[in-house]
Parts: sequence; C-alpha cells; structure tokens
Amino acid sequence: MSYFSRIPKIAYEGPGSDNPLAFRHYDAQRVVLGKTMAEHLRLATCYWHTFVWPGSDVFGAGTFERPWQQGGEPMARAREKADAAFDFFTRLGTPFYTFHDTDVAPEGHGLADYRANFAAMVDVLERKQADTGVKLLWGTANLFSHPRYAAGAATSPQPEVFAYAATQVRHAMEATHRLGGANYVLWGGREGYDTLLNTDLKRERAQMGRFFQMVVEHKHKLGFKGTILIEPKPQEPTKHQYDYDTATVYSFLKEFGLENEVKTNLEANHATLAGHSFHHEVATSIALGVFGSIDANRGDPQNGWDTDQFPNSVEEMTLVIYEILRAGGFTTGGFNFDTKVRRQSHAADDLFHGHIGAIDTLALGLDRAARMIEKDTLADLKAKRYAGWDAELGTKILQGGFSLASLADEAVSRDLQPSHVSGQQELLENIVNRYIYG
Amino acid sequence: MSYFSRIPKIAYEGPGSDNPLAFRHYDAQRVVLGKTMAEHLRLATCYWHTFVWPGSDVFGAGTFERPWQQGGEPMARAREKADAAFDFFTRLGTPFYTFHDTDVAPEGHGLADYRANFAAMVDVLERKQADTGVKLLWGTANLFSHPRYAAGAATSPQPEVFAYAATQVRHAMEATHRLGGANYVLWGGREGYDTLLNTDLKRERAQMGRFFQMVVEHKHKLGFKGTILIEPKPQEPTKHQYDYDTATVYSFLKEFGLENEVKTNLEANHATLAGHSFHHEVATSIALGVFGSIDANRGDPQNGWDTDQFPNSVEEMTLVIYEILRAGGFTTGGFNFDTKVRRQSHAADDLFHGHIGAIDTLALGLDRAARMIEKDTLADLKAKRYAGWDAELGTKILQGGFSLASLADEAVSRDLQPSHVSGQQELLENIVNRYIYG
Amino acid sequence: MSYFSRIPKIAYEGPGSDNPLAFRHYDAQRVVLGKTMAEHLRLATCYWHTFVWPGSDVFGAGTFERPWQQGGEPMARAREKADAAFDFFTRLGTPFYTFHDTDVAPEGHGLADYRANFAAMVDVLERKQADTGVKLLWGTANLFSHPRYAAGAATSPQPEVFAYAATQVRHAMEATHRLGGANYVLWGGREGYDTLLNTDLKRERAQMGRFFQMVVEHKHKLGFKGTILIEPKPQEPTKHQYDYDTATVYSFLKEFGLENEVKTNLEANHATLAGHSFHHEVATSIALGVFGSIDANRGDPQNGWDTDQFPNSVEEMTLVIYEILRAGGFTTGGFNFDTKVRRQSHAADDLFHGHIGAIDTLALGLDRAARMIEKDTLADLKAKRYAGWDAELGTKILQGGFSLASLADEAVSRDLQPSHVSGQQELLENIVNRYIYG
Amino acid sequence: MSYFSRIPKIAYEGPGSDNPLAFRHYDAQRVVLGKTMAEHLRLATCYWHTFVWPGSDVFGAGTFERPWQQGGEPMARAREKADAAFDFFTRLGTPFYTFHDTDVAPEGHGLADYRANFAAMVDVLERKQADTGVKLLWGTANLFSHPRYAAGAATSPQPEVFAYAATQVRHAMEATHRLGGANYVLWGGREGYDTLLNTDLKRERAQMGRFFQMVVEHKHKLGFKGTILIEPKPQEPTKHQYDYDTATVYSFLKEFGLENEVKTNLEANHATLAGHSFHHEVATSIALGVFGSIDANRGDPQNGWDTDQFPNSVEEMTLVIYEILRAGGFTTGGFNFDTKVRRQSHAADDLFHGHIGAIDTLALGLDRAARMIEKDTLADLKAKRYAGWDAELGTKILQGGFSLASLADEAVSRDLQPSHVSGQQELLENIVNRYIYG
Repeated sequence: MSYFSRIPKIAYEGPGSDNPLAFRHYDAQRVVLGKTMAEHLRLATCYWHTFVWPGSDVFGAGTFERPWQQGGEPMARAREKADAAFDFFTRLGTPFYTFHDTDVAPEGHGLADYRANFAAMVDVLERKQADTGVKLLWGTANLFSHPRYAAGAATSPQPEVFAYAATQVRHAMEATHRLGGANYVLWGGREGYDTLLNTDLKRERAQMGRFFQMVVEHKHKLGFKGTILIEPKPQEPTKHQYDYDTATVYSFLKEFGLENEVKTNLEANHATLAGHSFHHEVATSIALGVFGSIDANRGDPQNGWDTDQFPNSVEEMTLVIYEILRAGGFTTGGFNFDTKVRRQSHAADDLFHGHIGAIDTLALGLDRAARMIEKDTLADLKAKRYAGWDAELGTKILQGGFSLASLADEAVSRDLQPSHVSGQQELLENIVNRYIYG
Repeated sequence: MSYFSRIPKIAYEGPGSDNPLAFRHYDAQRVVLGKTMAEHLRLATCYWHTFVWPGSDVFGAGTFERPWQQGGEPMARAREKADAAFDFFTRLGTPFYTFHDTDVAPEGHGLADYRANFAAMVDVLERKQADTGVKLLWGTANLFSHPRYAAGAATSPQPEVFAYAATQVRHAMEATHRLGGANYVLWGGREGYDTLLNTDLKRERAQMGRFFQMVVEHKHKLGFKGTILIEPKPQEPTKHQYDYDTATVYSFLKEFGLENEVKTNLEANHATLAGHSFHHEVATSIALGVFGSIDANRGDPQNGWDTDQFPNSVEEMTLVIYEILRAGGFTTGGFNFDTKVRRQSHAADDLFHGHIGAIDTLALGLDRAARMIEKDTLADLKAKRYAGWDAELGTKILQGGFSLASLADEAVSRDLQPSHVSGQQELLENIVNRYIYG
Repeated sequence: MSYFSRIPKIAYEGPGSDNPLAFRHYDAQRVVLGKTMAEHLRLATCYWHTFVWPGSDVFGAGTFERPWQQGGEPMARAREKADAAFDFFTRLGTPFYTFHDTDVAPEGHGLADYRANFAAMVDVLERKQADTGVKLLWGTANLFSHPRYAAGAATSPQPEVFAYAATQVRHAMEATHRLGGANYVLWGGREGYDTLLNTDLKRERAQMGRFFQMVVEHKHKLGFKGTILIEPKPQEPTKHQYDYDTATVYSFLKEFGLENEVKTNLEANHATLAGHSFHHEVATSIALGVFGSIDANRGDPQNGWDTDQFPNSVEEMTLVIYEILRAGGFTTGGFNFDTKVRRQSHAADDLFHGHIGAIDTLALGLDRAARMIEKDTLADLKAKRYAGWDAELGTKILQGGFSLASLADEAVSRDLQPSHVSGQQELLENIVNRYIYG
Repeated sequence: MSYFSRIPKIAYEGPGSDNPLAFRHYDAQRVVLGKTMAEHLRLATCYWHTFVWPGSDVFGAGTFERPWQQGGEPMARAREKADAAFDFFTRLGTPFYTFHDTDVAPEGHGLADYRANFAAMVDVLERKQADTGVKLLWGTANLFSHPRYAAGAATSPQPEVFAYAATQVRHAMEATHRLGGANYVLWGGREGYDTLLNTDLKRERAQMGRFFQMVVEHKHKLGFKGTILIEPKPQEPTKHQYDYDTATVYSFLKEFGLENEVKTNLEANHATLAGHSFHHEVATSIALGVFGSIDANRGDPQNGWDTDQFPNSVEEMTLVIYEILRAGGFTTGGFNFDTKVRRQSHAADDLFHGHIGAIDTLALGLDRAARMIEKDTLADLKAKRYAGWDAELGTKILQGGFSLASLADEAVSRDLQPSHVSGQQELLENIVNRYIYG
C-alpha cells in the first residue's frame, strides 16, 4: 500500500475550486502562445528534498519519518523510495524529475559499492520511467555530503578527491545519458572556501577549470545531446562559493573557453542570497547568452540561509517568465522544484500542498506573462527609450566610428546639452500590475 | 590666513606619544622589507569628501561650512579650495592626492564653461604640485552628479549623454596625463539600473564595452603610461551597478578583450556592500591578475549604505597588506583615502584625526604584514596543504593527462578512498593574531 | 496656471481601463465590509517627498526643478508650494495629507522667524483645508535636518537643543490641533548614535523618556483628541536609532509608563531595514495593543537604505490589511504615502503614476483581505491549532493553576508523549493565494 | 587512553612563545585591576558544540567521528563523553563548563527514561566536578531538537508540549542547583514562528510569559541563588524568534514583571544576526540593568546564519570588556565559549587551537580594556560632552521642572540658538587604537 494512497491524482478544477488537492490554474494541456502549459513550464520534482531529507535542521532531528527513512537494508529502502517517488510524480503530474546519484542509490563504502548500487538503481529508474512516462530533466552527482568533500571536490587540496569526484560525475553523466536526461547539472556546494588563510584561489580556479573542461569533453565523447548546466550559489555551506552568481560563472566560462558549452541553472533563493533579485539573475543570464534552466523556489527575505521554500509569488514569477518567454522559452531546461516543505509540515499531504501551490503560481505567472507578451507595452516603451541608439549618433558610436577625442570634438562642436528624460518607473510598475490584476 | 593654520605639520612621534596630532606608527622613511613605508603605502588624500562635501546627508543639511563652501564667485572659491587642499596635504604629509574633474573646477553651464574652468584649474593644480611636491595618484571624471547622468553615462539611453561623458573623460584623462597622474580611474556610479522594467541589459553592456575600449585607445594615443582602473561597486545610487565586484568586472573585461589593459581599484566599503570581505576582493583581483589600487576606507557592518569611514581595523588591514606584499606590492596604485569624517565631526582638526588614525592603521598593518612575510608560516602551510597537486597525480590532471573516463578508471583501479585532512582554520587564525599581537 | 494643469481629476474607471491616469481598483465610495474604501484606507499624501524633495541623492543634484523649488522669496515659494500641494491632493483625490513644520514654512533664522513663518503658513493651510475639504492625517516637527540636530534632538548632549526641539514640537502640535489633525507623529531621525564611543545610552534614554512624557502631558493640556504616534526606524541617518522597531518602542513605552498613551506609526521600509517583514511589524503592534497608523511604502529587497518606493505588492498588502481589518480597522490612523518617485521620474505625471499605482495596490489588498475575512479560513484553522489552550490543561496552565513542579508531576504521572502536528504552512499559503487570485 | 592524551596541559608561556598549544596572553593568576584574569573572565567550555556535535551541517555528514560518537550503548557513551569533556576542561584550564540536559544524558523514550538517564549522569558530573574542581557556569534544557518541539516549547500550540518542556526545565534547574551552577539559562530556539499565517502572537506571548514566571517562582522555591538568564536570538531555526534582541527581551520582562528577576546571556553572533554590533547589545543590556553573561563567539560578517566561530578580534572584544569592567564586571556571569571548530577541523588538537586562540583574544581584550579604565579618557570626554545635562537647564528638564510649553517659552525668551559641537568620533577611535596598539 502506497504512502500516498490517500491522495488522488491531482486534476485541474479551475479557479473556483476550493479543493486543496486540485490545480486551480495549472491546466497542463491549455495552449498559451502556441504551446501547452506543460510544454512551456517543463515541471520537475526533485528527489533530494522530497524523498531523501528527513525533516532535520541544524537545531533538530528529522520530523518526517517516511517509511523508507526507517533504516533497514539500504538497497531495499532505495527501491521503496523509488516506488514512493514515482507514485508521487504520477499523482502530482509533474512530467520530469531530477536527482543526485546518492539520492537514488546508497553510497556504500568505496567506489565498488558506489558503482554497483548506483548501476542497480539506474536499472530501476529506467523501468519506472518506461512504466510511468515520467522523464529526467537532469541528473547530477553529490560532491558535498561525504566527509571526503569537506574541503571541496574539484577544488580539494587533494587530487585524489578530484579523482573520486570525477568518478562520480562520470557515472552520473552516463546514467543521465542512458535515462534520456535533458541536461546534466554541476553544483559546487563545497567548491569555495571557509577561510582565505588556507586557500590558494588561483590554484583552485585552475583545478575547477580543468574539471569543467573534462566534463564538457566527456559529454561530447558520450554523444550526450543535453545541456551542461552550472548552478550559481554565493555561499552555504562554504563561506564563499566560487560560482557566486551568473556574472561570476560567466567570468569563469570565458576564462576556460566554455561560454558556448555551459549554461546556468538559476535558483531563486541562490539569487537572493547573492544580493540579487531572481529577476536580475534570469535577465543577466539571458543577456549574456547563458540562460539554461530554473530551480524554482523562494527564500525568506528576512533569513540569511537557503530556505528552499515553494515559490508562491505570482508577482515575482510573472516577470521571470516574461523574460524567459521573450528569450524564446526553455529549450532543454525547465522549472525544477528545488523546494522543501517546512520541518513542521511532516504529513504526506503537505508534500502535495507545497507542489500544487508552486505549480499554480507558475501557471498564473505564465498566464500573466503571456498577456504581457501579447501586447508588449513594456517592450515598446523600452524600444522608444533607446531609440537614439538606433539613430545616427548611437549607431556610429557603437560601430566604432568615433574615438574618444573625435566624439568629444563632436560633442563640443554641436554644443550638446542633453536633458534628462523620465525613466517612468512608476508607470511601468503600474502596467505590470495591470497585466497581473487586470 | 589658512583654514588649517592651527594645525602643525604632522610628525612621527612613536607609539608612546599621546599627541593626537602626531603619527604613532607611520614613520614615512622607515624601511620595511626593502622599501620605505611611504613607498609601500603610496598614501593619497581625496578631494571630494575632504574638500567638496559639505557634511550633508539625505536627512540633513551640511554642517561643515568651510570658508570655500560659502557661495560666491565659483572660480575664486575653487582657487581657495585648492589652497586649502594643498595646505592640508602638506601639513598631513600624504604624498599623493586624487580628484574628479568637477571637484576641482566648477562645472558651469555647458561644455564651453566646463572646458574653460577645468583648464584654468588644471593650471592651478600644476603649479601647486610643483610648489609642494604633492603628486597625483589618479584623476577621474564625475559622470553621476549632474541630472543629465540620472540614467547613466556610457549606459545612458541617450547617445548624446554618452558623448557628453566622453568629452569629460577625454579632458579628465588629458589633465591626469599632464599632471603626471599614476593612474586614471573609471567609476560608474550610475552605470546600472533602477528597474529592469526600463532597461536593456545587453544594449547597455555593449555601450559600456565600447566606452571602455575608447578610453583604452585614447590612453595609448596620448602616450599615458599610467594604469586604467575600474572601481567595482554593487549598488548605490543605482539599485544595481554593472561593475558589481571583481568577478563581474573581470567577466566584462574578458568579453571586451580588456583584461590586460584595465585593473581594479578596490574599495573596502564597496566589497562589503557586495557581500564580500575586503580581503576577498583583494585576493580575487590578485588571483585574476587585475589588482591595481585601493580606496582605503571602511563601512559600518550594521548599515547597508556606503559610509566611507576611515579604516581603523589593523586586524583587517594586515591581511589585505599581506596579500598585496606577497603579490609584489603596488606598482602604480596606492592607498587612497576615499573617506569622510562623520557629519557631526565638523571641526577642522577632525579632518586630521580621521586621516592620522587611518594612516597609523595602515602603517601598523604594513608592519604586521611584513612580519608575516619575513617568516611566512601561512605560505608554508598552504604549500603543504596543496602538495599533492605538485606531485604526480595532481600534475597529470592539471596538464590534461586524463579524460574524465580515464581518471575515473584510475580511481577505480587504485580504489581511492581519500580521507579528509584538517583545514586547521583555528590554528591559522591564531598564527595571524600572533603576528599582530606578538 | 497650475503645475498639474495637464492632469485630469483621477477617476475610477474599473479594471478594464488602460488609462494610466485613472484608478482601476480604487472606487472611493464602494462599500466593503460595511464601510467605503475611502473610510477603510484613509489615504494621505505627504508633503516632504512629493513637494519638498528636489530629486537629489547622495551622489547627485536634484532633477525635479519644480517651479516652487527655484529659489526666490521663501514665503512666496511656500505659498506656491501649498497651492501646488492642494491642487495635487484634489486632482488625486486623497482625503488626507501630512507634513513637517519645516515642509510647509521656511525655517528662517532662529525661533522668532520660525514661529512667524510657521504661523503664517498654518493660516494658509487652514484656508486651503476649508476650500478643498482635504484633512490633516497628522503633523510632525522636523528635528533632524538642521545642523543643530546633528547629535539628536531630545537625545542631544546639549539641553539647549532639547529646548529648541521642544519649541518646535509645541508649535507643530498646536498647529496640528488647530488644523484638526487626527494624529501627531514623533519620528526620531537622529535620536540614536553614530558611535557608542561618545554616547551615554542611559542618559539619552532618560532624556527621550522625559521628552515623550512632556509631549503627552501637552496633548492633554491642549485637549488634543488625536493619537500620539511614534514611528520606529532602526537606523539611517544614524548608525542606530533608539526606536528601532515595535518591540523596542514598546520596551520604551513600558519603562516610561506611556504604553496606553502612544501608538506606532509603522513604515514598511523601516520594518524591512530592521530585519522584519512589514507583516510582522503590523501583527506585533496589534498583539501588543499599540497599533496606530501606517506609512505605506516599500523598500528595495536588495538595497540597504530607505528607498521609500510606492507600494506595489498586492500580495504583501493583502496580509497587512487582513491583520488591520481583523483588529477592527484604523481608528485615527490611515495609510500615508511616505513615498517618493525615483530620481529619474522628474515629470509631473510621474507623481500621479506613483500614487495611483499605490492606491490601486491598497484597494486590491483591501478587496482581497475582505474576501479573507468574509470566510475566514485562516482564523478557523488557527483556532483549531490552539484548541488545546482553550481546554482544561491549557486553561489551567495560563490561569496559574500549576507551579513548574506540579506541572512536571502532572506530565510524569500522565506520561505525556505529545506528538508533533503539521503546521500546514504550505496549505495556508495556498489558501491566501486562492483569495488573491481566485 | 584518553582521546586528548597527546595534548599537554595548556600553560601560559608569554607573548614570545610560538608553541601553538600554549597561552601567549592568558595568565590565569595575573592580577589586573585588582582581580586575577581567571576571576575577571570566568571562562567556560560548552558541552554541545565541543563534545556532542559530530561535524555535520545541512549539506553534509559529520566529519569528527569522536570515539564517543560511534554508536553503542547510549549511557556508556555518555560516560565516555563526560570523561573526554572533563579531561578537555582540565587540560585546557577553563574553570567552568556549561550544558543542556540532553547533551550530557541520552534522552531515551519518554519522561521516565529522560529522568533516569539524566539523574544518573548528574551523579557522574557531580563526581567529576569534585575530582577536577571544574565548576558549572550554567545549565539549561534542550527544548528544540526533539520533533515534539517543532512548533515551540512554551509557545507550542499544544499545552502538552508546554508541560513536557516544564518537566525538562524543572529537572535541568534542579540539576543546576545541585551541581552548584552559577546561573540557569533559557534559550528559546523554537519560541517563535515560521509563518504568521498559523501563529497567534498574543496567545504565544501569554504562554511564554507564564512559563518564565513559573521558572522564576521555581527558582525561589528551590532556594537557587544563581541568576536566571535569557539568551536573545533573532531567528534560526525559526523565521522569527521572540527573544530577538536585548530590547525585545526587556519589553517582555517589563510586561511580565520580571525585569528584576531575569538577565541577558548575550551571544556575539546572535547580536550580529539581529542587525546589531555585539558592543551594542552589551552596552544596551548594561544601560537597561539586565546584563548577565556572555556567549563568546563570532559570526561571519558575510554569512547570514549562526556560524559560532571562536572569537578572534581583540579590537571587538576590548570594547566589550571595557563596558563590562565599567559596569563592575561579571557577578554570576562569565565568558562561555558557545563556539565550534569548522567542519574541516576534525582533529583533536583543532579543539584546543580554537579555545586557546579565543582565550588569548579575551585576555588581550581584558588587558587593553584595563588600560582604558586606568586612565579613562573616553569617560572623561563623555562626561564633558554631556556636561550641560548636569548644569541648571538640563537638570531642571530631567527633574520635570518644565512642561513642553514652559520650556518652549524659555527657549523663545532666551532666543536659544545652540550651535553644533563636534562628536569627535575619529579622535575617539584613534584613542581606542592607542590603547590597543600603544
């Protein structure tokens, strides 16, 4: 009997429904701007927070006590966990899922165990994907939980740790490839430092650069057609993490010649921890041509750690989806719920409430963003604002038609006295709200 | 009669002195690691906070009421201000100074006024430099105070504003060249955005890229041998500034092919506003090969704006100077006091107390950092920590001797089980304090 | 000819309107939960940001250049400003306004000037109120802009400054009384410290306590029936402000016996600068019985200073208004727009866009909050959650029926093993969104 | 054979020593201002971080693998842990220790187990105290780790949880009393909320108030002469914790009539998480008459969670100790090291390095603070700054000799025009550094 057997398959019932176990806005097959909602959003449930995490925090023990978290023979428990996970995916209706290697299989002791356990569980996942139709949005390797990674994986001071990490990544990439994953993700939870006093920044950067190059080379060797993604995060568990934010990742990709090979997997809560709005990180990745995928969650504006809460702000998500739609939408990426229920929310149905609310938030955001695109007042006003750069002076400047001195001469000879023009921020904010609440 | 006539020339009196108008640690001619303190620190007083700012803040009027801030004929006031500034430099004994074009000359109305006033004041400065021996560490142009720059300078939506900015920069660069400046600084106070709703990030990045290229081309055309510096800041006055931190600046330089032409001018308070330690920003710039100069100040750890206070933490500055010394010390850069007395500190001697305390803080930091270098335990422990990367496995990895698969095969065949090694952070922190308080 | 003559009277046109100079949600006379929207919201426009501030910031000059900000005879300008302000209030349709003494009248030099100018302008305001029907929500005194207040007003180290401040407050209170103000506000912008090194916390607390007592005594002597309000703010311009947040203000009121005499005027941006959600500050003031009024604005989540932007989050405001409605709504308080357009938004219509968007945000919040109240699922679930405290054990504990030892004995004898119950946070968040987007 | 057997007894060797396992500044018997360093500082080692925590964090497993953390019979392990702890205290030389009930004894299942295990371990601790001379600075109860406390202890929505917590506190208080503890601490790790949507602030405040009253009543009934301490913390693990900071605690104590019964136990890292300097929290507690004890640690200025690092800033600690000395020094309180080594620092000697560095930091701070007291320039300047408040006008104001109106009349009749006086912040900061580095 399934852990989730009391929960019905979640169906779309429309905005008027007061059934807490139904979608009110996410209608998977509804067509918006030429694609279904499902095709636009490419929703994924994650394995780690939803099936692995026991509800513990730094100050307290786990509160969840799921059946598969009760101890016992590890591989049997891993199979039970997979049963529960795919049962959950199916009842909820998210077409994709995501995992770390050690989420799905027990790590065991040493590489032989690791490889055997993981291979066995990849077989299980492959069958379950075939049985349910659920697909893999991305896989990744956990290079941060085991004590061996306490000082980093690719950036460890010990090359043996780098080699161990390479082994995990190789297997996780190959599993992802075999399972038809759409992307492969790198998150460097401990690629950073706790103190500069024991850290050689230049050396660690070179290590990380070589690691990423090896990953990209392996992708091509495998014939993996998915996207390699890096997930920026500024800190936690380290004091400082090397893939701080989009701009930092981009500097790294440029240095190692990877800017056309690797894209970003942006997480809302990581953006805010880095001192940026989520909107900023998405817009910046798009502007730099490295936008890939999204870990959809939210942080707490008053707390300084990664709370990984379910997104519930339509106001925030509308703007993010507007940027993504304007950039052409996802290719291989999607919205992955890197989210966890609160430690108090230990009941089975809380897992559904969290995801349902998040999915409806995205569906509303998609609906409102589509309205914004259909009559794109913002884009029109923006084009008007920069019109001078498409006219003679602007074009000539950007095309290199002036030196500093000749442009200064031009300014003096024309006695330029440009006056300031309103940026109309308040009007623009009102227009956005008109689309959201119109 | 000088505004500072009551203040004696500040002399070194040694640690035992309780004269508040004397140095207790900064002995300009004392030789440390082969150079004098003056040669190491290359101290500069800034014009703007010290002679231009009236002591106002967002909630209140100016409290300083310096004689040259009383209104009257602008050029006469500018000359009085220059008299006071060079009198101050001389009494204090900082060998360098720094300025914005509009600090030293009234802006007037339009480019004709601007050029005439600025040219006249550059003549004045040139004479004063000759008279006093004070030198110019760097010049810059103010591209943020006038309303025309409300939406940016190089990144303005109006190309006419770009052209106006280019004119100012041309003149500020040429003045800096003529005055023998060691560097030229670009700070993009309004190169950023207030809202993404009216901002085209990609377009503005292209504008900024072209602007910087024009600056570098002009440098070479002039034959200016100084360094072009960019000063990162994350925000304020804008919501988001494009040269957020070192990593962001580096991504930009790489994209526009300027990473060998431009270096960073790092400010302590800007580092902390960006979510980094000052130590981090200095170490990162050094690791990326773009370290240039320092705006020495401090922020308030509890306040979220740029307080520009005088540095007073020897603990912080020792680590920063240690990094700089290990990287070979300043070339054209130096420590510029981009600092302001508190609004309550309106008395003439408060300006001296602020600078004297800051200079003694740097002198103590230099002294302690030199001790750290002389017997460099930290470097020894760091070398030991990474020794594996200089041995066979590490070298082979970094030199490209492994693919991901072949390295994984190696790990499996050797059954690698690396165990974690202590990072010894607590020991290292104690060692640092031993140098500071030993 | 009026500065705002191009702007029509702002009318309610309904959600479908795309007229940017109309209300889409604020229908002043619409009845919600038994009162009109106007009666619920009690909207006020502030004088200082909207008519006094020139669009300057720490890094740049004013961009607004309103006619009455052009210099000239101060009292004539003050009359022009009052004309513009009441013209604005009338076109916009906010029934209330708010001011500082020095917003409406030039301060002049010394107390004689101050009193004469202020008295003359109070006559002007009185006439204008009569002519337009606009009412005064509250008045206050500016005890922070003049250099004399650089070290505080009531908490100045100079009792003469305390006396000067008392004089301003006396006149501002009496003017408020005469103009029929509904409240009088105390905001201690410089009641705090820049450094503990020169500050006697205990002494300054005693000074502030006596000041507040004098204010309350004067209120009763005058027969003023309005509410005395304190506006918490954690910092800026000071490093630390003594009325940090609601809890701090409450500690102060309890110490000086004023908890039944003084209430809070809560500002959204001040709440977030203090590390709290706005919702928290409102709920806390209500729980402590000291809720008074609101300064409705928003901060920037990524910036650490008071940005005073117009509120535009219906999601945030709905919860705030829900709390206020549940507590019975405003008595003398209201929503005052302590907000300013961005420095780039210098056009006359920007002032309208800012206020219109904010008013529609509050109207939507009111509409959604009213739905939440009509069928108050949140309150029902909350009552259920705490039901044990209304049952035997809970009641006996709270009524003092147990000592620590006897309660422990009871727990042991009953072998209590309470198990945890889900807090249902995700479900509750979904319910809120159902009300907002249903 | 002891886990710490390779570590010698830590001795004072003086500033010149480069033995990392020696004190360079802490000379326990050295007399400073009439008391020994040991008497001034009253140093304590904590049980939880140093002996219980396995080196885990949210992203990774424990790295420490101490022998007593290896699983096995819980009471046997608890005895081993006590052996290790007292061995550590003795080798290190900290005269005090601190614990939670569940640090020293396994919790077991239900109250019967809890009581039996705890009682047995209190016997063990009593013997060890007698054998070693180590004393108990304070005890406390862990009311946050077990799932039953997920929604709070005293503020739980379930009165049964309140009763369970009362039982633990009763036993922890009685154990503390029996072991001669100098204080008893209350830290409400989960007394707060995760979301306001399910929280009744007023009700929870009443619950907490009654709980604290019961604790105080029990203290008197027991005849416990120690101090009851509350430890403020703003958040983590909850979103918001009710004892946010000193001011919030004080508001609570005043409301429940406990301001003369309860004092604060201030933690450096909790102060900074609350947006205050540690100095602020200490000075505020002293000014309000509720200063009790210190949890000496430090946070990371760039990270938003409780890092509990060892204090290493003499600059920060000197000012804190200066305040404490001026207030008469500790009575029952002391400096407790609520500190943990970094997760990478898994070696036995890392525990010593952490504590040794922290102790030397406090010893240096004490030495420098004593210098500041001996010739108290700061106090002299402060007295001078406020001199007006001891003169006629100031005294009359504070003694209630003026109403607002009569004081305003006085100001007008004397035509007061107070001018601003420099706050001399820069000079004062230089004076502090003169004491630290003189």
